Amino acid sequence: MSKVKADITISTDGYVAGPNQSPEDPLGQGAEELHVWALGLEAWRRPHGLEGGETGVESDLVDESIAANGATIMGRRMYSGGSGPWDGDSNARGWWGDEPPFHHQVFVLTHHEREPLEMDGGTTFHFVTAGIEPALDAARAAAGDLDVLVAGGAQAIQQYLNAGLVDELTLHIAPLMLGAGELLFEGVEPLALEPILSVPGPIATHLRYRVN
Amino acid sequence: MSKVKADITISTDGYVAGPNQSPEDPLGQGAEELHVWALGLEAWRRPHGLEGGETGVESDLVDESIAANGATIMGRRMYSGGSGPWDGDSNARGWWGDEPPFHHQVFVLTHHEREPLEMDGGTTFHFVTAGIEPALDAARAAAGDLDVLVAGGAQAIQQYLNAGLVDELTLHIAPLMLGAGELLFEGVEPLALEPILSVPGPIATHLRYRVN
Repeated sequence: MSKVKADITISTDGYVAGPNQSPEDPLGQGAEELHVWALGLEAWRRPHGLEGGETGVESDLVDESIAANGATIMGRRMYSGGSGPWDGDSNARGWWGDEPPFHHQVFVLTHHEREPLEMDGGTTFHFVTAGIEPALDAARAAAGDLDVLVAGGAQAIQQYLNAGLVDELTLHIAPLMLGAGELLFEGVEPLALEPILSVPGPIATHLRYRVN
Repeated sequence: MSKVKADITISTDGYVAGPNQSPEDPLGQGAEELHVWALGLEAWRRPHGLEGGETGVESDLVDESIAANGATIMGRRMYSGGSGPWDGDSNARGWWGDEPPFHHQVFVLTHHEREPLEMDGGTTFHFVTAGIEPALDAARAAAGDLDVLVAGGAQAIQQYLNAGLVDELTLHIAPLMLGAGELLFEGVEPLALEPILSVPGPIATHLRYRVN
């Protein structure tokens, strides 16, 4: 059955973004380091249009997730990059380039209505103003038998977790402390998790939980 | 060479204790669940005077840590249990029972002077009012060639991390969200970590980092 999955990289101290996010530094101070574990993997490079890269258990993990996902949901800031640049600007194109790496339908949670934006390579951004449940309904419909990925940021994942709508949570724990920024689990309600996978990589450790 | 190690269990959302800590509920709401991963292990049961228990890679991990530790440092609340009961009460015996599981010298960070307290089974609590560095000097002297463990709570670990005094950090990540309580890494400064071990257990995942 189609699942709803959250999948995100956090620092060892729990941040998904560093302090002082801006259009010039959309991930915030120090937070590019978070994603270093993925950049060399074949499974990450391919959907980004890059050749080569490492294969193996970590690449397989990313590959399987990507293959299973039929639609993506993200918050407005993850779409636009950083904290400010797209607020109310209905012409902004996001920061994903002309050929975003999703290659399927992406549903952006926002308060600003706008027409869908069709990109190269099979990605279309849909802007959903009706809330997280209608966005999930639309994403499920688009995904068919495949899974729906809640890709971030922190607030989107918090909202779906607190609404009881996430089936699986995957955390990639990167080996650094950011010290400040955006905490993934700020305001998440108490919850039991069932560990279903733990994969040690050379840089990050990957944990997957069934959410009860 | 003798190392300084921090070793602690956290929830998936980063808490070492739940909300509403009290003398009756010293770990705070929901936080007893944090430690379930350890309670069945032979290596945990033995120093607590209990027979039996599971052996295997997780028990070995605990065993090796215990064997390597020659002295322990802890905060006042970890000594006394909960947030309030021991403040200023120089007669309080802590909550570790007559035969605490340490079986070596334990240095308690506190603002209240008192005489050392010798317990059964080789544990003596020393109360250090001069700060974290004198406490570490005393613990190093007591440990000899063995390691010094900074056992917790969160504040003690934060202080030693921020002072650059921790060589190794071990996290046992328990599969639950506490939602509130005491965050392990609140106020910790940005820091690069070097992953040196990742052990998946049936309940918790165990991560060890060299701290640079």
